[in-house]
Amino acid sequence: MATLEDIGVSASINILSAFAFLLAFALLRIQPINDRVYFPKWYICGGRTSPRRSANFVGKLVNLNFWTYLTFLNWMPQALRMSETEIIQHAGLDSAVFLRIYTLGLKIFLPVTVLALVILVPVNVSSGTLFFLRKELVVSDIDKLSISNVSPESTRFFFHIGMEYLFTVWICYMLYKEYHNVALMRLHFLASQHRRVEQFTVVVRNVPHVSGHSISDTVDHFFQTNHPNHYIGNQIALERQRILKDPKSIMPVAFVSFNSRWGAAVCAQTQQSRNPTLWLTNWAPEPRDVYWQNLAIPFVSLSIRKLIVSLTVFALVFFYMIPIAFVQSLANLDGLERVAPFLRPVIELKFIKSFLQGFLPGLALKIFLYILPTVMMILSKIEGYIALSTLERRSSAKYYYFMLVNVFLGSIVTGTAFEQLHSFLHQSPTQIPRTIGVSIPMKATFFITYIMVDGWAGIASEILRLKPLVIFHLKNMFLVKTERDREHAMNPGSVDFPETLPSLQLYFLLGIVYAVVTPILLPFILVFFAFAYFIYRHQVINVYNQRYESGAAFWPHVHSRIIASLLISQLLLMGLLSTKKAANSTPLLIALPILTLTFHKYCKNRFEPAFRKYPLEEAMAKDTMERTTEPNLNIEAYLADAYLHPIFQSFEEEELVDVRVDKNQTHIPSPSESVVSSPSPPQYAYHYEVQPPPHYVHHYHEAEP
Amino acid sequence: MATLEDIGVSASINILSAFAFLLAFALLRIQPINDRVYFPKWYICGGRTSPRRSANFVGKLVNLNFWTYLTFLNWMPQALRMSETEIIQHAGLDSAVFLRIYTLGLKIFLPVTVLALVILVPVNVSSGTLFFLRKELVVSDIDKLSISNVSPESTRFFFHIGMEYLFTVWICYMLYKEYHNVALMRLHFLASQHRRVEQFTVVVRNVPHVSGHSISDTVDHFFQTNHPNHYIGNQIALERQRILKDPKSIMPVAFVSFNSRWGAAVCAQTQQSRNPTLWLTNWAPEPRDVYWQNLAIPFVSLSIRKLIVSLTVFALVFFYMIPIAFVQSLANLDGLERVAPFLRPVIELKFIKSFLQGFLPGLALKIFLYILPTVMMILSKIEGYIALSTLERRSSAKYYYFMLVNVFLGSIVTGTAFEQLHSFLHQSPTQIPRTIGVSIPMKATFFITYIMVDGWAGIASEILRLKPLVIFHLKNMFLVKTERDREHAMNPGSVDFPETLPSLQLYFLLGIVYAVVTPILLPFILVFFAFAYFIYRHQVINVYNQRYESGAAFWPHVHSRIIASLLISQLLLMGLLSTKKAANSTPLLIALPILTLTFHKYCKNRFEPAFRKYPLEEAMAKDTMERTTEPNLNIEAYLADAYLHPIFQSFEEEELVDVRVDKNQTHIPSPSESVVSSPSPPQYAYHYEVQPPPHYVHHYHEAEP
Repeated sequence: MATLEDIGVSASINILSAFAFLLAFALLRIQPINDRVYFPKWYICGGRTSPRRSANFVGKLVNLNFWTYLTFLNWMPQALRMSETEIIQHAGLDSAVFLRIYTLGLKIFLPVTVLALVILVPVNVSSGTLFFLRKELVVSDIDKLSISNVSPESTRFFFHIGMEYLFTVWICYMLYKEYHNVALMRLHFLASQHRRVEQFTVVVRNVPHVSGHSISDTVDHFFQTNHPNHYIGNQIALERQRILKDPKSIMPVAFVSFNSRWGAAVCAQTQQSRNPTLWLTNWAPEPRDVYWQNLAIPFVSLSIRKLIVSLTVFALVFFYMIPIAFVQSLANLDGLERVAPFLRPVIELKFIKSFLQGFLPGLALKIFLYILPTVMMILSKIEGYIALSTLERRSSAKYYYFMLVNVFLGSIVTGTAFEQLHSFLHQSPTQIPRTIGVSIPMKATFFITYIMVDGWAGIASEILRLKPLVIFHLKNMFLVKTERDREHAMNPGSVDFPETLPSLQLYFLLGIVYAVVTPILLPFILVFFAFAYFIYRHQVINVYNQRYESGAAFWPHVHSRIIASLLISQLLLMGLLSTKKAANSTPLLIALPILTLTFHKYCKNRFEPAFRKYPLEEAMAKDTMERTTEPNLNIEAYLADAYLHPIFQSFEEEELVDVRVDKNQTHIPSPSESVVSSPSPPQYAYHYEVQPPPHYVHHYHEAEP
Repeated sequence: MATLEDIGVSASINILSAFAFLLAFALLRIQPINDRVYFPKWYICGGRTSPRRSANFVGKLVNLNFWTYLTFLNWMPQALRMSETEIIQHAGLDSAVFLRIYTLGLKIFLPVTVLALVILVPVNVSSGTLFFLRKELVVSDIDKLSISNVSPESTRFFFHIGMEYLFTVWICYMLYKEYHNVALMRLHFLASQHRRVEQFTVVVRNVPHVSGHSISDTVDHFFQTNHPNHYIGNQIALERQRILKDPKSIMPVAFVSFNSRWGAAVCAQTQQSRNPTLWLTNWAPEPRDVYWQNLAIPFVSLSIRKLIVSLTVFALVFFYMIPIAFVQSLANLDGLERVAPFLRPVIELKFIKSFLQGFLPGLALKIFLYILPTVMMILSKIEGYIALSTLERRSSAKYYYFMLVNVFLGSIVTGTAFEQLHSFLHQSPTQIPRTIGVSIPMKATFFITYIMVDGWAGIASEILRLKPLVIFHLKNMFLVKTERDREHAMNPGSVDFPETLPSLQLYFLLGIVYAVVTPILLPFILVFFAFAYFIYRHQVINVYNQRYESGAAFWPHVHSRIIASLLISQLLLMGLLSTKKAANSTPLLIALPILTLTFHKYCKNRFEPAFRKYPLEEAMAKDTMERTTEPNLNIEAYLADAYLHPIFQSFEEEELVDVRVDKNQTHIPSPSESVVSSPSPPQYAYHYEVQPPPHYVHHYHEAEP
């Protein structure tokens, strides 16, 4: 058991490493040679061009202006200067709402921390049950501040129960406000945007095969019959593919265009055919967001795929140790020697042998955890979702289950997840919360350390972008020939939703569960939310370039996982109190989960449709406005080629390059040319009219003498 | 424990009472005086007029043709003569599909019974474990035919596991075929019907209140904006109510009419407003089916109502014994003497005292069970559903939960439901199926008796219609003045879905659970299904008059409850086998529930939309056909006044009666007049063109000399 000093030592180590990362970042980012690693977003949106033009050779690589070294931490206030509206214009709604999760964490936990520290800690400390126990017992200083310090059957538990009620009400209130805001932001975002192709387009899956007719003819016939006033056409893209490839590869799928948002909204939300497994319509994802490989999966195979993937995820969550143990048993030194006998003299050295014996068994586990998000993504792809945004949300959910079972429960209840599953199956439903509840206060120190390592130092390392930095410079040295190559070498990355959302949700879970149990954990959570908010705000503004825009479609998941955390905390508190012989409190607490579930159901009905459907009122209003302002708009021409299979896009791009190469025999391309050619193809029609805020430009000129 | 002879005695008693009921029915039904009790459906659809005209006074009351007494059982073949198509035309799709549940039972259980008796009974009997035990032990003869007779760790259990697989596959196959057929029948029924007002009408709830505008104006404005090409109008009915009543009673609800089925289908299936709790649209129920009292319930209160009702149902299912015990403690003899002292001399008589002491405590329970369906219906009404058909489905679901816990589980596990709940909460999830599974074979004799009492004799009493018979004759004696009064005194009743469906589903559950455990129970189930099929077919043809037509909307519930029975049987078999030390079989059986659930999910996706939505293809096809065949149709006039609040209907009816009374001062109405006035008002436009099949009319003339 860790003492307060242990925590102090761990805190200093982690704070120091976080500062080391920040310092390294601050020094690296002002070197012109790293400019494309730390400010790629500004290159992409055209606010910044190559820094190489205006300096001598050394100045191109290293920052010679020593004044800027003295102000190396000034990125922090700068990261706060952009307003939310500017962020939405600059980086999209997804990023802006992603940042709101951190402010939500701050808003929820700031009052909770203050209340818990002011009220619960004195209540716990003054109980003093544990002071009578000897130091050698499994009691840490942290425990004296926790609920463990209150003697059984004490009436002081009413403080804890009251606080649980207060916190639940407060968290629900904040969640409601936030859901309301995000839903409004989403509707406002969708309404204020310029015309977007996906508003007029519906994706139709499982088009039945009519012999003697092409898919395109069938689609045309069906929609001309059933949506006579609104249908425009389906898309040459698939038609072209039919010509290029053999007939077997025709996909029974089409992107169908309508002449109005109203017509598309109607088609996307209604059932088309008698047989509900044919002519499945849904909103088309935006063109960047389409995952083309999954479009052709037939309906029947979808439910089988889902079954198989669910079973695999279940196995992965509960039995992942089995294959790893197997690999570990193979990857021992004897096995290595047998495979590579020439290594024997090296391995037999005592120092190296002991190092390898300590290192090899852990390697398999580390590799597994490293590739886990990729595995989850592959599983989601097998499930057959057709949009990248959905794929990321689904793998994020899978990863969350893994973290919940193996990080949260796995740290509290000792033994592998498989052993837990076994023991849970053989315990009564009322026993499980007791088993977990009673060990919760004892694990507070572990989770405090976890927060510091993963939440503090880990987040600080995010801003350093060590991997992209190394890869960029390697590419720059060996591969880059033209400015266009340099554009490609630049890897801005994006918010990694499948990994970031689950760990965020884990922090919410830890904060909510420990709020009444061990309040001293809360300040560590608060520091995480504040620090991560800074870092990600900076990254969103300067680095990340989102691959797609889903309009904050992930929010309902964030909301419902926080609700799930509330429910878990209530159950565990019930279990914990029942071991404290405060069983009479159960009737007092039983109302909480029921109320929380009712609140969740209400929110689901009230807000979720805003994330899943497009109201006709909205569609009609936009249609009418557009007809007034642009009476001569040719919507058919606008929609043509919007959804082009990537196979054609790469063709066109190559043709473009060919032409350019022919041209370039005589003149070298200017950077401005290449910059203009880099944004997403014009048919996507994203009219971001934002200019980089003046202080950014200003700062950039500062960095260049 | 009952021996085979006990079962035999019980069977003879029940068979005799069933025959007594049938005999009484056969004699009563050929008396002309009872004609309106046993053939009301034919009076309502106009195929039969009063039998009084063509005989002398005695002949009007009693059947004097003794020949008909000899052929008194000939209703049975007659009940089979009508084809399914004729039944659909005669009594509607609801009734026809209701009868199909019984044939489904026969189709499922006939092969299962044969296989189980031929394979499993010999396997069980030849094991002979129980023959070594002495007769005094708790072993009945039935048990020797059951799985209990197989010794622990026997390899013979592979027969049972194999049979469980075979039965599951067979039942799923039959369920799939039946769901497919019923879905097709529903679509065909909807497509082949004449024009119906509900196809053009959408009910809009939670119309927002705009100050300075009437609800009607707001609705007009909203739908003229958002559905400009399809909207016709909303309905004077509510408008009129506004004029009649004070402004407070205006309901924020409207029936909105469209000029095409397509327009209505679009409006019913899409989200209208930004705020998903306003402008809630859904298909209007048919006018007969509307439950007007619930229309005005606002959205927020709906979720609270649902929560309260769910909690009440939970309490009712698990704690219903508490209030009954309380009432019983009040309703003892002492209490009775205190309330009614004048009864003391009578009560003090020893014979009467012992009778009452045996009778009174049971009375509270009997009254409770008698009013339970009504209570479930009241609870469903509180939940706020707006169609009678939905209300009946919901109360049927509630009643099913009650039966499942208190009849099925309650009979297997001794003790009150509350005690069960308590013990289940303190057992591990794997222990519960064992506890139940191990007592299942022992309760087979009880359920055999239950099937005979409730399923054989109970069903036979249904055909006698004792209550409507008595009430009709009482009314006839004291109240009936005119032929119109006689029409009203006639109470045809209807299929009592809230009570019949749950008990049907209980029989499926019993059959499926006992199929591998105690196969000897199956023939009793088979007899029930066959016998009840006869009885209900007769009732549907001759007696019942459905109050509404939902197009077999209850089928998805029937399907999913049978699936639930399958899952229960699989779990219980796993539990049972694990107590037989055949724990190795668990991995063999674990695949079954997973496959069953997958099958259920597939069926849900494949067929359920046919019961919930109206495909646009279908709507457009009917619209187009109608425009071709009836180009001059004035749809607006057709829809006017279709949805009239009952308050106006009663006004109009009274006016009608007043006029008639004035007219009738001079001439007495002929029966044909009154028959014509009785069908549902003409604006419903149900064009049943069916004529009663000739043999029915023939039979009627036979009965009259």
